[in-house]
Amino acid sequence: MFFHKQELQHKATPTKPDAVFARKLQEVLGGQYGEITVAMQYGFQAWNSHIPGKYKDLLYGIGAEEMGHVEMLATMICQLLEKAPIGITDDAVQSDPVVAAVMGGTDLQHAIVAGAGARPVDSMGNPWSAGYVTASGNLLADFTANANAEMQGRVQVARLYHMTDDKGVRDLLSFLLARDTMHQNQWIAAAAELQAEGTENLPVPSNFPQSKEETSVSYQYINFSDGEHASEGTWASGPTPDGKGEFTYLAQPEPGVPMPPPTRPDSRLYGTTDLPNVVEKIAGTVQDKLHRE
Amino acid sequence: MFFHKQELQHKATPTKPDAVFARKLQEVLGGQYGEITVAMQYGFQAWNSHIPGKYKDLLYGIGAEEMGHVEMLATMICQLLEKAPIGITDDAVQSDPVVAAVMGGTDLQHAIVAGAGARPVDSMGNPWSAGYVTASGNLLADFTANANAEMQGRVQVARLYHMTDDKGVRDLLSFLLARDTMHQNQWIAAAAELQAEGTENLPVPSNFPQSKEETSVSYQYINFSDGEHASEGTWASGPTPDGKGEFTYLAQPEPGVPMPPPTRPDSRLYGTTDLPNVVEKIAGTVQDKLHRE
Amino acid sequence: MFFHKQELQHKATPTKPDAVFARKLQEVLGGQYGEITVAMQYGFQAWNSHIPGKYKDLLYGIGAEEMGHVEMLATMICQLLEKAPIGITDDAVQSDPVVAAVMGGTDLQHAIVAGAGARPVDSMGNPWSAGYVTASGNLLADFTANANAEMQGRVQVARLYHMTDDKGVRDLLSFLLARDTMHQNQWIAAAAELQAEGTENLPVPSNFPQSKEETSVSYQYINFSDGEHASEGTWASGPTPDGKGEFTYLAQPEPGVPMPPPTRPDSRLYGTTDLPNVVEKIAGTVQDKLHRE
Amino acid sequence: MFFHKQELQHKATPTKPDAVFARKLQEVLGGQYGEITVAMQYGFQAWNSHIPGKYKDLLYGIGAEEMGHVEMLATMICQLLEKAPIGITDDAVQSDPVVAAVMGGTDLQHAIVAGAGARPVDSMGNPWSAGYVTASGNLLADFTANANAEMQGRVQVARLYHMTDDKGVRDLLSFLLARDTMHQNQWIAAAAELQAEGTENLPVPSNFPQSKEETSVSYQYINFSDGEHASEGTWASGPTPDGKGEFTYLAQPEPGVPMPPPTRPDSRLYGTTDLPNVVEKIAGTVQDKLHRE
Amino acid sequence: MFFHKQELQHKATPTKPDAVFARKLQEVLGGQYGEITVAMQYGFQAWNSHIPGKYKDLLYGIGAEEMGHVEMLATMICQLLEKAPIGITDDAVQSDPVVAAVMGGTDLQHAIVAGAGARPVDSMGNPWSAGYVTASGNLLADFTANANAEMQGRVQVARLYHMTDDKGVRDLLSFLLARDTMHQNQWIAAAAELQAEGTENLPVPSNFPQSKEETSVSYQYINFSDGEHASEGTWASGPTPDGKGEFTYLAQPEPGVPMPPPTRPDSRLYGTTDLPNVVEKIAGTVQDKLHRE
Amino acid sequence: MFFHKQELQHKATPTKPDAVFARKLQEVLGGQYGEITVAMQYGFQAWNSHIPGKYKDLLYGIGAEEMGHVEMLATMICQLLEKAPIGITDDAVQSDPVVAAVMGGTDLQHAIVAGAGARPVDSMGNPWSAGYVTASGNLLADFTANANAEMQGRVQVARLYHMTDDKGVRDLLSFLLARDTMHQNQWIAAAAELQAEGTENLPVPSNFPQSKEETSVSYQYINFSDGEHASEGTWASGPTPDGKGEFTYLAQPEPGVPMPPPTRPDSRLYGTTDLPNVVEKIAGTVQDKLHRE
Repeated sequence: MFFHKQELQHKATPTKPDAVFARKLQEVLGGQYGEITVAMQYGFQAWNSHIPGKYKDLLYGIGAEEMGHVEMLATMICQLLEKAPIGITDDAVQSDPVVAAVMGGTDLQHAIVAGAGARPVDSMGNPWSAGYVTASGNLLADFTANANAEMQGRVQVARLYHMTDDKGVRDLLSFLLARDTMHQNQWIAAAAELQAEGTENLPVPSNFPQSKEETSVSYQYINFSDGEHASEGTWASGPTPDGKGEFTYLAQPEPGVPMPPPTRPDSRLYGTTDLPNVVEKIAGTVQDKLHRE
Repeated sequence: MFFHKQELQHKATPTKPDAVFARKLQEVLGGQYGEITVAMQYGFQAWNSHIPGKYKDLLYGIGAEEMGHVEMLATMICQLLEKAPIGITDDAVQSDPVVAAVMGGTDLQHAIVAGAGARPVDSMGNPWSAGYVTASGNLLADFTANANAEMQGRVQVARLYHMTDDKGVRDLLSFLLARDTMHQNQWIAAAAELQAEGTENLPVPSNFPQSKEETSVSYQYINFSDGEHASEGTWASGPTPDGKGEFTYLAQPEPGVPMPPPTRPDSRLYGTTDLPNVVEKIAGTVQDKLHRE
Repeated sequence: MFFHKQELQHKATPTKPDAVFARKLQEVLGGQYGEITVAMQYGFQAWNSHIPGKYKDLLYGIGAEEMGHVEMLATMICQLLEKAPIGITDDAVQSDPVVAAVMGGTDLQHAIVAGAGARPVDSMGNPWSAGYVTASGNLLADFTANANAEMQGRVQVARLYHMTDDKGVRDLLSFLLARDTMHQNQWIAAAAELQAEGTENLPVPSNFPQSKEETSVSYQYINFSDGEHASEGTWASGPTPDGKGEFTYLAQPEPGVPMPPPTRPDSRLYGTTDLPNVVEKIAGTVQDKLHRE
Repeated sequence: MFFHKQELQHKATPTKPDAVFARKLQEVLGGQYGEITVAMQYGFQAWNSHIPGKYKDLLYGIGAEEMGHVEMLATMICQLLEKAPIGITDDAVQSDPVVAAVMGGTDLQHAIVAGAGARPVDSMGNPWSAGYVTASGNLLADFTANANAEMQGRVQVARLYHMTDDKGVRDLLSFLLARDTMHQNQWIAAAAELQAEGTENLPVPSNFPQSKEETSVSYQYINFSDGEHASEGTWASGPTPDGKGEFTYLAQPEPGVPMPPPTRPDSRLYGTTDLPNVVEKIAGTVQDKLHRE
Repeated sequence: MFFHKQELQHKATPTKPDAVFARKLQEVLGGQYGEITVAMQYGFQAWNSHIPGKYKDLLYGIGAEEMGHVEMLATMICQLLEKAPIGITDDAVQSDPVVAAVMGGTDLQHAIVAGAGARPVDSMGNPWSAGYVTASGNLLADFTANANAEMQGRVQVARLYHMTDDKGVRDLLSFLLARDTMHQNQWIAAAAELQAEGTENLPVPSNFPQSKEETSVSYQYINFSDGEHASEGTWASGPTPDGKGEFTYLAQPEPGVPMPPPTRPDSRLYGTTDLPNVVEKIAGTVQDKLHRE
Repeated sequence: MFFHKQELQHKATPTKPDAVFARKLQEVLGGQYGEITVAMQYGFQAWNSHIPGKYKDLLYGIGAEEMGHVEMLATMICQLLEKAPIGITDDAVQSDPVVAAVMGGTDLQHAIVAGAGARPVDSMGNPWSAGYVTASGNLLADFTANANAEMQGRVQVARLYHMTDDKGVRDLLSFLLARDTMHQNQWIAAAAELQAEGTENLPVPSNFPQSKEETSVSYQYINFSDGEHASEGTWASGPTPDGKGEFTYLAQPEPGVPMPPPTRPDSRLYGTTDLPNVVEKIAGTVQDKLHRE
């Protein structure tokens, strides 16, 4: 169950409206790595988890916080939009290029659709999609996804930080940056803990019997481009992070195997084939007769 | 530049057709974590990278391999579809529930749209979307995204492995599993190398001055659910993975701050407000006069 | 702020697993009118609302409940999937058409992507999209949207009720049906209250000066099809619900106005025009010269 | 069958071109509540309706009108785009910020993709999606959806009205406003008629036996937030709009029920579980043997 | 303006219901090349066309017919769904695998969302997207798009023809096949006419001055794969279809040019760079100071 | 297999950065007819093709080239973005409308998400979708799709050519224009060759027995609009391009057939019907009893 409290975790009020920045801020609300994504992602991971206890509590404990971040951003965006001009385009351009420029950079649906309100979209207006969510039931994979999400999120907030000098907005961003710092650290710690206690290990999934994979290429770097510097990395020689192998480096792929011959599906699917023309016509006639009614 | 060679990196021929499995296999071709995703993702990361040398070579070197994996899967799917029945539904059901059952589990567009061919979609028929791609320009964030992608991919291939006993299909899957093992290890090694050489560090992005974030909550677990076991994890006490702090645990959030009052945007956006009814009517009349033409 | 409690509002446990029904149940979790839609919709309406007090409290008060409904459905789906067979297609078909039939009707991503977990998608596997959300800032419009959402939702749950006889599932559905009953009534009451107190009225938006609309057709039914029975309805004669007009009926549209002539945009957009061939060539040459290097 | 006549229902010619407004106008052509949505929606509702006569005639009669509105808007947009500058960005910016500002606010695909033509997208460039359409077969639910669509549409047109002072554009908008007034009234009248004649009633669907729903919570407001003003509304006490109950108010939810234990799906789905590490390894070995080759 | 007549262009009644085929038929209603696509496409091409007269009349004349095809298919689908079983999954499976198999192959939203009605989606349930529509303003390009659409459409209908033996369904399909035959021929004739009269020619757009393109590679086949048979085609030697060149064949690409060095965008975007670690730290400190508060 | 070489087919370096043009260029990288589309389309057509030899070699030979075009455009876009201002909106507007105007026209995700990198999206920010890809297995249909794709692509590049005067950018565009010229010619030649050798003919699919289509309307133009000029075209009289018929012209459709009566699906789907109210209530009661617990 979720409960709502009409308070915010942190102050979310700009010094003054800025409709262009409101649009930019949408990215971390409704983008691929925005707060809706992590709120939903941690929720589904918790519901799909097969372990009671600390990991599940962790997912629940943060998931609800992220829903509150959605709320802080929505609240901020509404205020940034408060005095957005809706004036007449043509006029504005003629008389005031500044206003025109501002209007060119806004999310038009903020005004037309939401009446100066926030929207569940990214900075280019793409509606949030659940296709962004990751929840596989495998916690080591999922915690790595979460660490990535918090990194991408912090990168984006850091970029946004330099696109405004509004003290109120920066105040909120500095709070979000701190929480992203925490959450990066925490998912990395949680991924490490899974491995330390042997619950899940590399390579993920760790209890798939590795004897079933084609082990000759399990730790081999195969270079499909012509750069040679990849041979210098720790991924090209030495022990592998999973502790189960040694990296080797192959400067170029070995010869492949021949492609199988083209398929010949049911002729009633009308794919083009290479049957000689005449045969085809005969076949067509026969086929015709054979086809039911 | 990309060059194509009419060979496959590994044999991709099933022992016999299986149209239902063909649909399942679409997931790792055209799904959120399918081969199209990683091929595109490594390409865009390479093009967007600001460092010449080993990391860029690594991205190019693997990206092209993944395009070849797309090809192997497409080739396999075509063969799995080769003898797919397209017979008459009703008849099949009456006379042969087995055929009917098979048909119920197929991707209908395999037959109707592609003529027994592969498609750039996932196992539920959703077209692949570039919304799955991650390429931020920050390599530590992106390599973590890549490690996750290879983990999710290996989990999915492992699951698929048990959904068929076709030796030819399993042979290909065992190859993909091995490559996913390699690529998981390699992205983890690359992420570690970035940190070891100080190119990029936690928290990402590491050169955003941490003094600008609200440090009081940078390493604090705040529990927004009522489970208590999250306090037991290494993310709740002790040193943080970024080496810059100590985790603390807060059993429940501190009181929040009041929400700002509702906004009052331009009345010509016609949002509902709480102006008293009478005033509103007057306002309406006045507003009417004020509105241009 | 949102808080989570590790309890469910209502029991959500099936008597036994049923992977096919799990897929059907996804519709009311992640479909156009599923619980994610209403949870998000009421949230954004609250954040975008310009009125403090009862309406905002109402939106917050129900929005959080709906997030809990998402959780109940996800929990139910996980249990319905618990013993889903992942066996080998071909074998199953040969030996047990029943199992094959079941597998044909499942959401393949439940197994391949989520490991027998719930997903933020509808019953056909489409990821939830924020394009479903409505939050305009105009409360009469939005409460009507909400009434519709609860009606569509209850219709869907009622249909699902007859697609299972599992007592545990029906128990949860009967709870959701009751809540939908409540919420339909409540949004209709809220819409009526807005009108009764004069805060918002028909036609929406009520404070747009109606003198600016082309009043000659404001209450006229114009019949663009050839059926004649629409003239019998209360929408074809008598007073209008907004209390501001009388319906009239026009059996067929009046003659229209001529279309404007085709546009002639910049020739450098290379749209096809009807300039005579020769002239075109000359123009091409001239244009060529005029184009900046 | 549909027939086309090369006339417009109403004049659709601007006084002068305005490429920025052309983009804004796309919202009511191809947005969530644009004319394509209602044209398609009324069509599918008519085709899916199970009643001959007045309701079906009504849906057909208006659906075709809406297709004509799509045409009027497309025609208007083409003319607004007629003289759109396609000049060189950099130059324009240097020499004429006004032109640059204009260009920043345009739909780039208007020029690049459509050659100064209209497109089936919204004001942010999202392609129209059939995910916007509602047609459930239940007329009371669907007419409520229609009333909402006309309200949202009229709100948007009213907002657009103030974003231009072009007499030609406003002339068309005033026509659309009037039709939206009519259609709001008409769907409300039709919904009322369904109830008056007993064809369909609240709660929708009215012939689902209410005895099957958990009646203890059918008319109970349960407050999941901490605002107290929702108790003041007509949705918190007194008779319910469906005439079948009395509203009650619950200031906070009753205690919930415990969550069910986590599920344990087939181990071959490789979800992370809490089996002790050692056991897991044994299990892994055994499992390995048990798995079919 | 569009007018609707409550008649169908051709009979659209099946001999008996078939819910599985109803789903398949959705492909040609709401798929990439379904009737909604061509109806919308011809409409937008007409509205965006810059030529009065025969081409515009052609687009209008067929566009409205295609809307009628949408209606015929929707009507057919409703009837195919009329007796679709909605019974209890588990029971059905136990007692009647035939029913279970049928249910596995249906569009679940036909029942749950549309109440046995048609939907604007394809056979895999993807909602129709305006991203399928092509209307560039260049008629030779667009008529080629149209020819393709009618070819893809006829291929799909031909495939569907063999997936049913219902006389009523086949009767409708045979009508659609004939219309697709007509429309293929007609768009090819129209494309030829544009060229014959010199209105538009190859290469499209024909009035872009070819002197501005890099003519050394305008008619050169460059082989980026290792197959040699492409050299045998009429596209590898001899005159080109546009009558302006001679095809040549290059067995493999000439050496390319070096890639430009990686870019160095503003450091406040926090992309990873290769600045030495120490320098980076210094830079970070300096940068920190330089950043505005 | 695909191999990558760290060279470009053609120089791709602008004279100077231009972030606004970078966004425009995204259209031909990640739009409906951008390079990702053709790269993927030719790949899937090759994999799905049933003919070894020249056609398959052709598809492979060009497909890999197109992947290289994706790379050239991504590389160009990165450089165009190199010095994009990320300064503070409000400030910029106050002090420098030119910068503000530029920023209004940029793809915000270029900065916020990709750190001045390219993205797999179109010029309006829509992520590339595999829904753009065509690969039916029927080569005449698919080569026509390809001809169209190259035409649309060349039209778009030609338009972009006039939106910049940067010599470096125009140099790349002139190369792409030349390749589009080649590829248009080549697909037209290939389509002609299929027909000349009798492998595939009009109408597509040519081996579907035309006797099964309703031949009375196979070559008949039926005019559903009121323009009369379509009768003047070569599609209205004379021999048809497929060589199998004579065009005829019908000035308006013949009378249609009556619509079938509305369907009556299972009452448990709760669609609205016209059963008299009383009967309905009785039915409801009975139904209630009949429904399984």
